Amino acid sequence: MAVVSLYMSDRDESKTFTDKKEADNYDKMLELAENVSLWMEREISGLNESQIEAIGMLVAENKDTVLKALKGNSGVLLEESAEGENVTPISATNKKKK
Amino acid sequence: MAVVSLYMSDRDESKTFTDKKEADNYDKMLELAENVSLWMEREISGLNESQIEAIGMLVAENKDTVLKALKGNSGVLLEESAEGENVTPISATNKKKK
Repeated sequence: MAVVSLYMSDRDESKTFTDKKEADNYDKMLELAENVSLWMEREISGLNESQIEAIGMLVAENKDTVLKALKGNSGVLLEESAEGENVTPISATNKKKK
Repeated sequence: MAVVSLYMSDRDESKTFTDKKEADNYDKMLELAENVSLWMEREISGLNESQIEAIGMLVAENKDTVLKALKGNSGVLLEESAEGENVTPISATNKKKK
């Protein structure tokens, strides 16, 4: 029997990865979600726990879309459906736009 | 008496500018706020009108901070106070980091 390495983000122990880079990306995404949630909790009054968490995940899972919006094309927020692009399209990983 | 040109965003007729570029930036900021608000309203259940508007303005007024956060340094969201950096610091305008 062979021993296989698994990688896991300590922010979500329900998910393991065989690829370290994927685990790193996932951990970074969860960290972004967490910090967006903490920021919203601090700045916007009256949000409940699930709204705070949902806003953090929404932004983190749609990071590339939000980046486009912040760079001037904010209409994209309303175009792309929001089921999340946490699966980074292959084209986005290997050819980074300058 | 001389005639002076004034510029105004039709998204906020309470504010006029003598500098067109400033008016453009302000209009772009309000457009971003509006689209973030519409996005949140669509994606996050149970938000009231003032929360929806406040989230849009929070993101738009802190655009540069959110950009840094999305690019990997999400801790900045919790450092910089959130009274908004809609006044772009001089250093950020003329020496753009490559």
